[in-house]
Amino acid sequence: MALLMENQFIDLPADKTLDTKLFLESVSYLPSFFDCLGSKVFAPIKSDISGNITKIRGVYDKDPVKYATLQQIVEAEKEAYGAEWPKVGATLALMWLKRGLRFIQILLQSLADGEKDENNPNLIRVNITKAYDQALKKYHGWLVQKIFKAALLAAPYKSEFIKALSKGQVVTEADCMASVRQFLVNYTATVDAIYEMYTAMNAELDYTV
Amino acid sequence: MALLMENQFIDLPADKTLDTKLFLESVSYLPSFFDCLGSKVFAPIKSDISGNITKIRGVYDKDPVKYATLQQIVEAEKEAYGAEWPKVGATLALMWLKRGLRFIQILLQSLADGEKDENNPNLIRVNITKAYDQALKKYHGWLVQKIFKAALLAAPYKSEFIKALSKGQVVTEADCMASVRQFLVNYTATVDAIYEMYTAMNAELDYTV
Ligand SMILES: CCCCCCCCCCCCC/C=C/[C@@H](O)[C@H](CO[C@@H]1O[C@H](CO)[C@H](O)[C@H](OS(=O)(=O)O)[C@H]1O)NC(=O)CCCCCCCCCCC
Ligand SMILES: CCCCCCCCCCCCC/C=C/[C@@H](O)[C@H](CO[C@@H]1O[C@H](CO)[C@H](O)[C@H](OS(=O)(=O)O)[C@H]1O)NC(=O)CCCCCCCCCCC
Repeated sequence: MALLMENQFIDLPADKTLDTKLFLESVSYLPSFFDCLGSKVFAPIKSDISGNITKIRGVYDKDPVKYATLQQIVEAEKEAYGAEWPKVGATLALMWLKRGLRFIQILLQSLADGEKDENNPNLIRVNITKAYDQALKKYHGWLVQKIFKAALLAAPYKSEFIKALSKGQVVTEADCMASVRQFLVNYTATVDAIYEMYTAMNAELDYTV
Repeated sequence: MALLMENQFIDLPADKTLDTKLFLESVSYLPSFFDCLGSKVFAPIKSDISGNITKIRGVYDKDPVKYATLQQIVEAEKEAYGAEWPKVGATLALMWLKRGLRFIQILLQSLADGEKDENNPNLIRVNITKAYDQALKKYHGWLVQKIFKAALLAAPYKSEFIKALSKGQVVTEADCMASVRQFLVNYTATVDAIYEMYTAMNAELDYTV
């Protein structure tokens, strides 16, 4: 779990404001998560998520004071863009990014909870499928769903995935899962807070790609 | 055919040297070709090909005199990289780029030759499949082949594809195909010359992704 543990998310303040700079720092390591899946076919996903982060950072860098929190960015864009909003700017980038973050969260949580295919305990397809169904499927048309089903066959064995998450160090599954659980505390709170903001601001869209 | 006609490839000299600068100029418009396929799912292909071009341009820009022709680039890299070569640098980028170029060439040629599925004359799946089988399939493992089969279902109708190639202008199929034939003359000669160079220099690899 070296990959994730070295880049823990912060404990959110009580008012759940999300500091843009700290968020961008923590999240910048997550595209590498898709390398842990082992196959080159996941490169387009990694680059989609990296693109979201770059888009948000681009807005932040224009005025770090004005955009100090993610909430301030989304509110400023709502003002600035009128009818185009929320399918625009960092609001759109964060809308999609949070779905990728949720995917990672549910996948890790499912593994940490020991959910498995009893007939194939070393496969993680059930965990990936659960994460996909809950975080992304709804936003994908039949074609992307079909491509997902094909790509799922390239998912690594659980043992390989754990090794990759641990940056190649040999660790026990139990040790890795203990770290995952610790990582998930602040991470889940952060992802939840973004979802709550999108609901509160009526910024969520459900079009499919 | 506005997209391609405005960016014709040059008539090659008798010795078939490929001027790097002119090649990069002509080829820089081709990633947009994949937009003509209509669906967002082709974005990863467009970005793979754009990446190849960027890689080659990066090498060229380091020393435009030393790297004046594509042959000089590949030869200089053979010297410089030793055992790593040819799976490295602009040599690798051009190895893959030429396959994408061949894909486009065979697809356009097949359309210009009037090859069609008699039962579905407005579909271009037979043409795309022919191009894929001849240019790329061999270099793709079963998984990417499977993803190709799914993506094929997102291919546009012939009429839409022609309209997109013509930059949205309404032109007859016959007019468009006349332009395609004209475009293909120098384009095919260029792609052939690159393939010949890879064979002559023993630079071709057949690993799969
Ligand atoms: C040779 C044959 C080749 C054929 C080619 C086929 C290629 C198939 C490509 C498959 C799609 C790759 C994934 C990317 C999907 C993306 O389309 C979506 C929407 O992407 C968003 O779109 C917005 C506009 O609507 C903005 O541009 C956003 O950009 S903006 O920053 O500009 O605002 C952008 O992120 N993102 C997503 O669905 C997010 C995906 C997140 C992670 C998913 C995890 C799944 C893990 C699976 C494990 C088994
Ligand atoms: C939510 C679920 C999401 C699941 C995610 C699934 C995503 C599936 C992605 C599918 C693959 C996209 C196409 C890209 C394939 C690429 O892997 C290959 C090799 O790519 C090369 O690899 C080299 C190293 O081996 C270097 O990195 C090269 O880079 S270098 O410049 O650094 O040297 C690079 O181009 N290029 C290719 O095969 C080239 C493809 C050319 C065009 C193909 C036309 C097909 C048209 C089809 C029309 C129907």
